[in-house]
Amino acid sequence: MVYIIRRERFSAAHRLFMPENSDEENFRIYGKCSNPNWHGHNYTLFITVKGEVDPNTGLIIHLRHVSQLIDDKILKKVDHRNLNLEVDFLQGKVPTSENVAIGIWNELEFEIKNLGGTLHCVRLEQSENNIIEYFGN
Amino acid sequence: MVYIIRRERFSAAHRLFMPENSDEENFRIYGKCSNPNWHGHNYTLFITVKGEVDPNTGLIIHLRHVSQLIDDKILKKVDHRNLNLEVDFLQGKVPTSENVAIGIWNELEFEIKNLGGTLHCVRLEQSENNIIEYFGN
Amino acid sequence: MVYIIRRERFSAAHRLFMPENSDEENFRIYGKCSNPNWHGHNYTLFITVKGEVDPNTGLIIHLRHVSQLIDDKILKKVDHRNLNLEVDFLQGKVPTSENVAIGIWNELEFEIKNLGGTLHCVRLEQSENNIIEYFGN
Amino acid sequence: MVYIIRRERFSAAHRLFMPENSDEENFRIYGKCSNPNWHGHNYTLFITVKGEVDPNTGLIIHLRHVSQLIDDKILKKVDHRNLNLEVDFLQGKVPTSENVAIGIWNELEFEIKNLGGTLHCVRLEQSENNIIEYFGN
Amino acid sequence: MVYIIRRERFSAAHRLFMPENSDEENFRIYGKCSNPNWHGHNYTLFITVKGEVDPNTGLIIHLRHVSQLIDDKILKKVDHRNLNLEVDFLQGKVPTSENVAIGIWNELEFEIKNLGGTLHCVRLEQSENNIIEYFGN
Amino acid sequence: MVYIIRRERFSAAHRLFMPENSDEENFRIYGKCSNPNWHGHNYTLFITVKGEVDPNTGLIIHLRHVSQLIDDKILKKVDHRNLNLEVDFLQGKVPTSENVAIGIWNELEFEIKNLGGTLHCVRLEQSENNIIEYFGN
Repeated sequence: MVYIIRRERFSAAHRLFMPENSDEENFRIYGKCSNPNWHGHNYTLFITVKGEVDPNTGLIIHLRHVSQLIDDKILKKVDHRNLNLEVDFLQGKVPTSENVAIGIWNELEFEIKNLGGTLHCVRLEQSENNIIEYFGN
Repeated sequence: MVYIIRRERFSAAHRLFMPENSDEENFRIYGKCSNPNWHGHNYTLFITVKGEVDPNTGLIIHLRHVSQLIDDKILKKVDHRNLNLEVDFLQGKVPTSENVAIGIWNELEFEIKNLGGTLHCVRLEQSENNIIEYFGN
Repeated sequence: MVYIIRRERFSAAHRLFMPENSDEENFRIYGKCSNPNWHGHNYTLFITVKGEVDPNTGLIIHLRHVSQLIDDKILKKVDHRNLNLEVDFLQGKVPTSENVAIGIWNELEFEIKNLGGTLHCVRLEQSENNIIEYFGN
Repeated sequence: MVYIIRRERFSAAHRLFMPENSDEENFRIYGKCSNPNWHGHNYTLFITVKGEVDPNTGLIIHLRHVSQLIDDKILKKVDHRNLNLEVDFLQGKVPTSENVAIGIWNELEFEIKNLGGTLHCVRLEQSENNIIEYFGN
Repeated sequence: MVYIIRRERFSAAHRLFMPENSDEENFRIYGKCSNPNWHGHNYTLFITVKGEVDPNTGLIIHLRHVSQLIDDKILKKVDHRNLNLEVDFLQGKVPTSENVAIGIWNELEFEIKNLGGTLHCVRLEQSENNIIEYFGN
Repeated sequence: MVYIIRRERFSAAHRLFMPENSDEENFRIYGKCSNPNWHGHNYTLFITVKGEVDPNTGLIIHLRHVSQLIDDKILKKVDHRNLNLEVDFLQGKVPTSENVAIGIWNELEFEIKNLGGTLHCVRLEQSENNIIEYFGN
């Protein structure tokens, strides 16, 4: 079993808040991340796929297929977008890094199986100091 | 003459557009950066100050004074903010990296002189691939 | 289960030696790290906490609580300090990266439980080339 | 159990192709990596060794022994070399990152055991975007 | 005057040698970089363009035009290529970083003028430790 | 004229203080950097040499000669050392980054001239946030 990791990047706006809460309550929970005028980040995304190495090709999976998949299913939806307003797989969720990482996992898990690999980890870096890793349920 | 460089970081939302233009025209000029629902970035800011080294202290300037100044005059205004809506020194400007860097220069130039140094360069990294440097007029 | 990672940094002096050994013997074991006049490093610390995502807030834990905890329990004690002379939780230990990482784990494990998370990993980078990871016993 | 990670770097040329295939077929599988005139990379290698910390020295293993071993068994063979033509432990393999990582594992596993540690992971970064991790069979 | 910097990357093989020299003489001059079986690098390229900021758009130049130009004139020729054998603008030159940077300057200088900017600097990083900067004659 | 930059690294202990001052006065000037028990850093050093490219070799200067020179004249003296106590070229100076950069310049300027290049810049990064550049008088 070998693990292959693909790094991708996207830039997006978001706001952390629960609509049923007052601004004060949201500020108490989320701090400056609850600014009603939005803020944003450059996100760095690391997708890890595990699989057996094909003894002929020396490859687990065609990495450009993985890259294409991430582009189609994730980047086209989130890059230069508003994570609260524009992303189907985040509808009804607070777009914390935790929820974004889980959402990306759910979008990719099946598709990567179809490519012949197994999704192992979604790592999402919201800044150089704050990082989420999700390995599925 | 010695140059001292201080790195700071902030995260903000913005949208590139000219209000007098149609969305189509703005898209033609700014591409996906003109998304009406905003997007955002982690910005990395490098402020270079030049000065003579004090032969007693071995310092050009007290770096924590520079850091405090950047915090008061810039970061408090831009971090976790919307660059189009909330930043006094960007009012009426398209918040391109070029204009943000020039705006930061204008906010800091005088204040750094008051600390006994000379502002030399504002370097603003909007992503790992796109960087602006401004050295004043 | 989701993992959240917080990066922090500190700068410290240390010397690797066993007091019962001669300088020659210490040099044989620790090389130039045993210099009796000390040397130092910029350490980069990654603290991983695991937990369930709260379905309401979308958060595992309040990251600023984790950050505050690391500051109180670790950074205040080690940053701009001498790891041999000034750090309570390293008394009587050779301040190798291994022992520093284990010491940090022991300081944080309970406290993070009190915040509602589980400490998963202490990663300590002493330089870009030398890194320790500790996951507890 | 503590994990120690040593980073090393090497630069090498390679070509991804199966000799029994036509250039067209190789291009279909490997894309531009099958260029018959070679291309190359700066590889970053992270070797993770796990072990118990010696309560006297505070060390798992002498890191300079690990570093010396990686130099002797790996870097001398691959740095500024052609991975297809010059590396004994890659003979008869397509030098994909997968196969290079597995080859490095096989070269080091026993030798690290002889030093008193256990090889845990070979991580090979072929570029900032493409990474392999191998943990043995 | 504002400076805009675009980062791009490419991976290539090369060999440093003068065809009129013996292998021994080439080794004396270029060390292991003269390996007749080639080696390679991930190159990081920073192209700096200077210009006035358009007061309407807030831009010096359309960065995607610069990026497209670098792709057409440079990356298509050098990425996943052999710098000795396959690059028209390096024919007859030893592909040292110095010569590659100068060659890239010569390819871009006029074209960037046509876009309305002025090429200011070509920075070429052959590894994290070895970097060339060229500002023209 | 082409510029070549060599990156090197060293780790050292230091303390910022003026011996004629009280600890309180030193703390007022240097903050926690005046801790009498020392602290330390991983320093990253970038040495820029400018020169003409030799039309035969394609090189400004033999980079391994520059690297060897930096090792002999700087790294052997500062790496894993105490900058206050053990470095001849810093005797009688407060080892601020400013003074360390100037000291390195003075050690290298003549020697690089002897190698056929011209020292252009000493850049010293004391941390990712604090950097000094010195270009000589």
